[in-house]
Amino acid sequence: MNLTSSLSPRKTIRQDSVQLSHRRPVRIHPFANHGDYPLHDHEFYEICLILRGHAEHLSDDGVSPLRRGSVVIMSPGRVHGLRKPTGLNGVNIYYLAPWLLGDPMLLQQRLLALLFLGKTLFPAGTLRTPILFEISSHTLIRLERMMEEITAEYAHPFASLFSVRLLFLRFLHELSREYEIRHGGSGIPFHEEVWAAILLIEQCVQQNRKFNVSDLARQIGCSAGHLHRLFCGATGAGPMEYFQTRRMQHAACLVLDPEFNLTQVAYQVGCADSAHFSRCFRQHMGMTPRDYKRNFQIGECG
Amino acid sequence: MNLTSSLSPRKTIRQDSVQLSHRRPVRIHPFANHGDYPLHDHEFYEICLILRGHAEHLSDDGVSPLRRGSVVIMSPGRVHGLRKPTGLNGVNIYYLAPWLLGDPMLLQQRLLALLFLGKTLFPAGTLRTPILFEISSHTLIRLERMMEEITAEYAHPFASLFSVRLLFLRFLHELSREYEIRHGGSGIPFHEEVWAAILLIEQCVQQNRKFNVSDLARQIGCSAGHLHRLFCGATGAGPMEYFQTRRMQHAACLVLDPEFNLTQVAYQVGCADSAHFSRCFRQHMGMTPRDYKRNFQIGECG
Repeated sequence: MNLTSSLSPRKTIRQDSVQLSHRRPVRIHPFANHGDYPLHDHEFYEICLILRGHAEHLSDDGVSPLRRGSVVIMSPGRVHGLRKPTGLNGVNIYYLAPWLLGDPMLLQQRLLALLFLGKTLFPAGTLRTPILFEISSHTLIRLERMMEEITAEYAHPFASLFSVRLLFLRFLHELSREYEIRHGGSGIPFHEEVWAAILLIEQCVQQNRKFNVSDLARQIGCSAGHLHRLFCGATGAGPMEYFQTRRMQHAACLVLDPEFNLTQVAYQVGCADSAHFSRCFRQHMGMTPRDYKRNFQIGECG
Repeated sequence: MNLTSSLSPRKTIRQDSVQLSHRRPVRIHPFANHGDYPLHDHEFYEICLILRGHAEHLSDDGVSPLRRGSVVIMSPGRVHGLRKPTGLNGVNIYYLAPWLLGDPMLLQQRLLALLFLGKTLFPAGTLRTPILFEISSHTLIRLERMMEEITAEYAHPFASLFSVRLLFLRFLHELSREYEIRHGGSGIPFHEEVWAAILLIEQCVQQNRKFNVSDLARQIGCSAGHLHRLFCGATGAGPMEYFQTRRMQHAACLVLDPEFNLTQVAYQVGCADSAHFSRCFRQHMGMTPRDYKRNFQIGECG
């Protein structure tokens, strides 16, 4: 059963309801005893964990049963819905992907990066979500505890985003390991050369270094043309375009840092020309740096 | 009561008993109903947590009572002992500091870095340990759970050092926050300029860039001489010496990475000459790169 062309969302879950921000880069929204969730998509990744009850999950992949321990990973823009819920309890989790990507060690966790950031990293790629799998009750209990700890961390009088990041990365790591145990290495479809390129590009981004594809190919030990073909085949874009995407996502982290103004951010990511920076940012992030700051640099909101 | 000059260790806790390695960079050693612990020191940092019972802690700072919730942080080379134990239960925790310092975000957690890595970062500094403080029973229970999770992670069929790092950093973060709540900002004695310099030097280390003090001073906005005086006053060494220390600690991480041979590591930290690299490494790490690899790149050992 494939409904690819027949699903169109009745609404989009947006920032105005999710309220991600530089102070709340992870949001945990419990739901309980709700009616049907008509077809919808999201501006952000959504991780849905079912804690109790039953329902049917509807997506491009067809209809699947949901029960305690079901996990659904939805990438931005993909459509799904829930129907026939019976005593359904669970949580939806949203996160600000550029904030998460601020950790230089993250891309070394390949499966984690593909599952939870694949569409952000490779917007033109063919990585398929929704991903639906089941976890054991034992794992679910541990994940529930981690979510409680994230909530407790936000409420701590000396709340720390460092701690939120550690907790949330562990949460994602646990989920990706459970997925791997069930589905094996099949979750990592890219050639070694492509991963080597991704890690080297990341160094350029984090270190604000100049980037060119010939140097990259030489470091990896293949021709620029071969690397370009492999990279495009895996990610849907060439290495230079990927670099530009990552550079603007990196800029997006800096834009939300109250320590920097926009001119400083432009300079830090190697754009001497602010107008050029603004255009480039908009092209990759969907809005200008100023709007991005206004949209996500919001105060505490419960 | 100050016993500074009168304490001399009867033994040193060394690698041969602690068995830290690139696969087990954190070790948790429980102890229970032991007799006195005569005066001793350690090659590594030790964190001692008291879970039950009573004892007296003896160090350069004098005699202090230990009870449930007491935390002792001992830096390498400092001497302490325990006496008059009554039903004493607790854990000693050891960790491989260069492995921990492999995380570029760590030095942004200033108090954590000073408490648990201060002597490693600033061997000539005057930071005083032992640090002895008390935590609440509630916090202790959470820390015990984190330690159980580290132990469980090692035993996991798909054990992940990424996960061990996240857990252990949270453990240290929790302890440093408890310390801060009790002792306030007094835990961070350095000027802002010194911290800015530490973070900029860290970028040079992680990015394998050339380093010179004049550039650093210009970035911070003061004279090289002024920066040197501030830096020495705080850390006991000049910025260039600190850079060399960090560069060799960074090399130590790479030495334990099975992906690289010693020539590659030397090249990666900017030493074209292997013999020079080996001398420089030995000067900062106390042994040659080859011995360091042999010493810490050991297999699983329970």
